[in-house]
Amino acid sequence: MSKSDAKHHVTLILGDGIGPEVVASARTLIDAACPRIVWEEAEAGAEVFKKGVASGVPQHTIDSLSKTRLALKGPLETPVGFGEKSANVTLRKLFETFANIRPVRELPGVPTRFSGSGIDLVIVRENVEDLYAGIEHMQTPDVAQCLKLISTKGCEKIVRIAFEFARSEGRKTVQCATKANIMKKTEGLLKSTFEHLAKEYSDIEAWHIIIDNCAHQLVKKPEQFDVIVTTNMNGDIISDLGSGLIGGLGFAPSANIGHDVAIFEAVHGSAPKYTGKDVINPTAMILSGVMMLRHLGEFEAASTIENAVMATLEADIHPRDVQTASAPVGTKAFTQAILEHFGKMPSNYAIRPHKPMVVPPRPKTTAIRKVEKRETVGLDIFTEFDGTAADLGPMLEEAAKGTGAKLKMVSNRGTVVYPLTGTDPDVVNQWRCRFTLDQVVTEVPTTLVSGLLQALEAKGLRWMHIEKLCRFDGEDTFTRAQGEN
Amino acid sequence: MSKSDAKHHVTLILGDGIGPEVVASARTLIDAACPRIVWEEAEAGAEVFKKGVASGVPQHTIDSLSKTRLALKGPLETPVGFGEKSANVTLRKLFETFANIRPVRELPGVPTRFSGSGIDLVIVRENVEDLYAGIEHMQTPDVAQCLKLISTKGCEKIVRIAFEFARSEGRKTVQCATKANIMKKTEGLLKSTFEHLAKEYSDIEAWHIIIDNCAHQLVKKPEQFDVIVTTNMNGDIISDLGSGLIGGLGFAPSANIGHDVAIFEAVHGSAPKYTGKDVINPTAMILSGVMMLRHLGEFEAASTIENAVMATLEADIHPRDVQTASAPVGTKAFTQAILEHFGKMPSNYAIRPHKPMVVPPRPKTTAIRKVEKRETVGLDIFTEFDGTAADLGPMLEEAAKGTGAKLKMVSNRGTVVYPLTGTDPDVVNQWRCRFTLDQVVTEVPTTLVSGLLQALEAKGLRWMHIEKLCRFDGEDTFTRAQGEN
Repeated sequence: MSKSDAKHHVTLILGDGIGPEVVASARTLIDAACPRIVWEEAEAGAEVFKKGVASGVPQHTIDSLSKTRLALKGPLETPVGFGEKSANVTLRKLFETFANIRPVRELPGVPTRFSGSGIDLVIVRENVEDLYAGIEHMQTPDVAQCLKLISTKGCEKIVRIAFEFARSEGRKTVQCATKANIMKKTEGLLKSTFEHLAKEYSDIEAWHIIIDNCAHQLVKKPEQFDVIVTTNMNGDIISDLGSGLIGGLGFAPSANIGHDVAIFEAVHGSAPKYTGKDVINPTAMILSGVMMLRHLGEFEAASTIENAVMATLEADIHPRDVQTASAPVGTKAFTQAILEHFGKMPSNYAIRPHKPMVVPPRPKTTAIRKVEKRETVGLDIFTEFDGTAADLGPMLEEAAKGTGAKLKMVSNRGTVVYPLTGTDPDVVNQWRCRFTLDQVVTEVPTTLVSGLLQALEAKGLRWMHIEKLCRFDGEDTFTRAQGEN
Repeated sequence: MSKSDAKHHVTLILGDGIGPEVVASARTLIDAACPRIVWEEAEAGAEVFKKGVASGVPQHTIDSLSKTRLALKGPLETPVGFGEKSANVTLRKLFETFANIRPVRELPGVPTRFSGSGIDLVIVRENVEDLYAGIEHMQTPDVAQCLKLISTKGCEKIVRIAFEFARSEGRKTVQCATKANIMKKTEGLLKSTFEHLAKEYSDIEAWHIIIDNCAHQLVKKPEQFDVIVTTNMNGDIISDLGSGLIGGLGFAPSANIGHDVAIFEAVHGSAPKYTGKDVINPTAMILSGVMMLRHLGEFEAASTIENAVMATLEADIHPRDVQTASAPVGTKAFTQAILEHFGKMPSNYAIRPHKPMVVPPRPKTTAIRKVEKRETVGLDIFTEFDGTAADLGPMLEEAAKGTGAKLKMVSNRGTVVYPLTGTDPDVVNQWRCRFTLDQVVTEVPTTLVSGLLQALEAKGLRWMHIEKLCRFDGEDTFTRAQGEN
């Protein structure tokens, strides 16, 4: 595209609070470097909520983005009293931008504790699944549950984006950060998918790192990292950690990449108390715009802006959130200074070689792993009981008689408490009761399920949650409790 | 106790790899400062596994700890091929040390990027529940699930320990770090419990902070923090982040506190490749011993050792993991140097005033919150289907006919996909099918449940997971999906 005269249509969402100011700054610079952009202004956020649109995103904005497939977006607010959903999340979900890409690079002229270390890393965070699906159920009045869901497809998509992004920037290493040592099935699925797909990207080194060690290393020696790919919750924490390393949110750009749509935005919020005061650092939004230009293949324009930003910072022209700035400049003056530095090269900052990133196509099927043989071996029935394991266990054994299943064990918060272990752990009033079927079957008969539930209820036990225990091709689909044989 | 001549019996676990060396160092100093300690040596870890004890912890060690209620412990290994459980986790679970206390304080003479900032904070991590219960079920061959479980009791216990620890060290502020903005019921339970109990500790300031912002602030301005209390997974990440701020794991002590037992240990591993080489930094284990002495009320002995460690470091006598050390000393020489500094005061380090920490008693009941009225309004049935929402939705509506329930909506990874929304999100083959009962009841009849399951199976749909949808005292026990009315 960059060599033709074709126009690029981009949806421009000014956003709330200081959004319009930082977006105007980015737009000014992008227009100067790349006249081929055609902006389509569209609304989202506070004003839209106040007009009664519960999602914060009106149809004309959805239509614009569906057409342009690209947005540059300011921060959005959800005003108090106008619905509980965030317009940011609505956009992310609607257009399924499953990859959140957060570059973390030391900037010249922005002194931090890490200055001189040469930090230049990118965090690629899964953006759709994991705990953020927000599926919660109170199991009892005292026990809350959230489902952490991780899929093969979700892992495959985020891992491929991480490798493809690494390639597009000439990066050498991708590290996958998980807690697979504790959560072997969920976090382990990202690890195994990563290790499997790494073979297809033999030009790039691939390593696994435990997420807590990753956080430790990020503050101890951040310059050792290149690309880090991780699950949604882990990524939320370490990407915010990352922006703290290089001067804060005022300098943290991001891209949200989907198969069809990409949305570029600063990480920071709308900072309403600074609205209209011309004091906000627009760098995060400007660098988000630079990422957008590269996504469009406009590498020259991107480099022009990036070099000018760095040359400006090196010239000690600083926005107000650079702590050592002796005479900080406002948003407009900083933007103007960058414009005046177009064509200048920073002395302590070299732009990476870039080539277009390949966004892998959307997978066609939901069934990635083939399973030949399915068996059901039991049921986990979660019950509520205000008593002890010594009281509960025999009741469950008794209840199971004649149902076609028998009690294997009871665990409380993941640790076996029945059969009694001789210890006396403190318990909560949700108990996981694991029953094994007398006969392994393909699918457990619903009559057996209801018989067991009835027997529990006859003992006065309330159930609230059931999980089937299966074997897929001979492999257990479930983990054992701490202390279970 | 400190004023009497009573002996303190302590279980001493040397541990694996470099464990015996660092434990010997701590023991030497503790014996010199506090002759009243009577050590009971006990085994755990690699050699125990190799003798065939699957938990890695033999009965005599359990007996010793049950009696002494206190351990100083070296790092433990699980040798490859000897069971998949960690002896560390076994000890933590057996004695239910529900609070992991991790002080993070800048040390004089240990230069880091944060030197001079005056970091002096403590992370209090819940240690029993959350995702670490390790309850995982493959929902389909392609979708893994882990249960995040948070209880009122677990929150109450960890919050009280955080406030009590703050009081024992004369600290002024406790911050509770959660992701309650996304996980309103689970992470929200810690937040609400914290806000409720904070009223009982009016001498201490109490603030909530979002966990990702907490990680950001920890690298930007760690000196602003005092005590941070958080859930297990969050705490795992930010406590390792914390130790990175002050020089690494060689300097990171910890206490694991339960109602009955407390275990003090360094955070680092057994570093087998350095075994017997007299090169390991024993500071983390020594400072864990200092925490133990304070737990015993031996404040003077604790101060003697702590001051001597700091005076030694200030004298530029450094273990090998201090990066600027020009002539680092070995484990034994470092220990000897500390002994020789007994009675000396560091010039840039002041010991906090300490008083005994109150460990609140174990709560007597599992039912903390009273609920007067329970209603069941529906069921979430999770099914496997390799197709589209447009195909699945009508099948479910059809199946529900005559069962006493009707389909409200279907979500995939937490976002509504049926009734159709006009968008086309990428889906995985686990679908959450939300059915509402035709009549609100106290408990859903098991015949209705089995009727619905049978109807799903008749359509060829496999279910693997059921959640009851309730109202407790009129409040929904479940969250809505993204896009659900």
